[in-house]
Amino acid sequence: MEVSIFGRKDMQEILEMKEVIEGVKAVYKLKAEEETAVWPLVSYDFEEPAGVMDIKSGYIRGNINLHGAKMLNTFWGNDNVNTPIFNGLLMVFDSNTGVPLGMMDASYVTCMRTGAAGAIGVEVLARTDSRKLFILGAGKQASFQIAATLILMPGIEKVYIADALSYENAVNFADRMPEVLRKDFKILNREYVDFEAIEDMAAGVGDSDVIITITPSRSPVIKKEWLKPGTHLSCVGADMKGKVEIDPEIFTNAKIYADDKKQCMEVGEMELAVKKGIITEKKVVGEVGAVIAGLIPGRETKDEITVFDATGVALLDLVTAKIAIDLAKEKGLGRKAEI
Amino acid sequence: MEVSIFGRKDMQEILEMKEVIEGVKAVYKLKAEEETAVWPLVSYDFEEPAGVMDIKSGYIRGNINLHGAKMLNTFWGNDNVNTPIFNGLLMVFDSNTGVPLGMMDASYVTCMRTGAAGAIGVEVLARTDSRKLFILGAGKQASFQIAATLILMPGIEKVYIADALSYENAVNFADRMPEVLRKDFKILNREYVDFEAIEDMAAGVGDSDVIITITPSRSPVIKKEWLKPGTHLSCVGADMKGKVEIDPEIFTNAKIYADDKKQCMEVGEMELAVKKGIITEKKVVGEVGAVIAGLIPGRETKDEITVFDATGVALLDLVTAKIAIDLAKEKGLGRKAEI
Repeated sequence: MEVSIFGRKDMQEILEMKEVIEGVKAVYKLKAEEETAVWPLVSYDFEEPAGVMDIKSGYIRGNINLHGAKMLNTFWGNDNVNTPIFNGLLMVFDSNTGVPLGMMDASYVTCMRTGAAGAIGVEVLARTDSRKLFILGAGKQASFQIAATLILMPGIEKVYIADALSYENAVNFADRMPEVLRKDFKILNREYVDFEAIEDMAAGVGDSDVIITITPSRSPVIKKEWLKPGTHLSCVGADMKGKVEIDPEIFTNAKIYADDKKQCMEVGEMELAVKKGIITEKKVVGEVGAVIAGLIPGRETKDEITVFDATGVALLDLVTAKIAIDLAKEKGLGRKAEI
Repeated sequence: MEVSIFGRKDMQEILEMKEVIEGVKAVYKLKAEEETAVWPLVSYDFEEPAGVMDIKSGYIRGNINLHGAKMLNTFWGNDNVNTPIFNGLLMVFDSNTGVPLGMMDASYVTCMRTGAAGAIGVEVLARTDSRKLFILGAGKQASFQIAATLILMPGIEKVYIADALSYENAVNFADRMPEVLRKDFKILNREYVDFEAIEDMAAGVGDSDVIITITPSRSPVIKKEWLKPGTHLSCVGADMKGKVEIDPEIFTNAKIYADDKKQCMEVGEMELAVKKGIITEKKVVGEVGAVIAGLIPGRETKDEITVFDATGVALLDLVTAKIAIDLAKEKGLGRKAEI
């Protein structure tokens, strides 16, 4: 049978953020409606050379109807041998027959669906009149968060970029961003957005309506006292034990949402707050998909603080793979191989 | 980076049983030397349509040094829609960098490594003067068992084929076998081997030195009283809960070996014997790899009964994938894609 084979470059040509957002939203909703299964995580720590691998897998029923697995490898020493640190493959299968549909590079898929996830948290939970966005992190992933958020929130006019380790990096990132939006994401109608690198994080956070955190930090950066009432935070960087980006005290008077409640409590931004006993499971309102499905309330007043903790589930990769396969067919792009 | 992409037909052209046997043997040995890791199995039962999927994964250190995962889907209803019942993909990565090496069809790999495994059990544990082989099962897998065993045991002159459900099927299988050996396995120097379908299983088993069972049976077929002293049995078909091919009483006075001891006790041929209390863990001598590595004894007398319980581990698929990648390079076959 014919199987779609897409490399990193194919995926960049094929995928469109708008479509990925719609797919991720649909999957969040199906998850809340119990139309998905997230299978157990398999992970392993390599000793020599130091590395981590994990296998995430799952199943989406409904009209999407596919299942699959993603293996992602992280080998920090690769930098020294001029090889990417992250490498991975994703395979998807038709859940009616088990026939393979596609095998593809997993890294670009991960970036796209992670951008979509953070932005969906903003659309669903932030104040609709939000004008200013603060991004903590100026790495590769940050541009995906910005692109997706600008698509969903056309009212945003200002984006602060903060890099706790290097202001210079934030400046370079802010300078490049308009071109990245046009070239990499084909977003042509956001010339009015002003990108500003900011050194004084307290000032930037205090002036913003929406915060997205997308760093590998292992100690809290965003302080509770910096936030103004009505702020929304999408916490995306913390996705494994020990990672944390915001003061755990922020959770005490926030409305808390998760992409996957159990996983967020174990390895997400809320891990530390749970471990410290600052919050318990009861304090989590629910999953963002349940808000999308109309099963639980989202933001109810303009002054409340909302937090979306996004740790990532394989279901998002699977639906993004499906979108890639469908778009490739439509556009006549990508490759097929007889398998 | 360039990744090897092989379909079912590519694998048939590329792989050679001799090489697969060497690879599987090396991995069994590395496993005994604790140079491998078998990661937790992920499995799922689909309800509508009925199906099963499992993800097997693992890591081989030493000079092989790769890791990966295989997802295999079984959808029984596919027969009705003219689609294979088994479908799967295998992905392998370099364990120094996490860079993907190959993505390929998993079904032919599974057949080849399973054939090699059963035959290695014969080579390691059967009497070296074995002349007659009895195969229970005349399905697709049986020819792989025969081909591998004939390569390792050139003294075998007679092969009995038994199909408990259809003697006619066994007859057809026996008739086809000489051509299958020549065409599918390129084994040209075994013209002296006589293939005979046999209806009287007691007689066939009693006349044989080696038994290989390769059926999906769920009740014992081979009776204890049929066996002559000194017989070796490689039990390959029983690889999940409830599957069983030989009388569990056979284990009481046999020397028992496993491919993976824990897995065999849970889902292998010995599952029923363990559950019935006929044997305990102590009765299992060890893993076949430990015999190959010279760590434990194999057969010690010409009269003892030996049993090799082979349930299959992902490590065998991974090494077979590596062999395919290396052979493809050597032969200038297969495809590569930029991923």
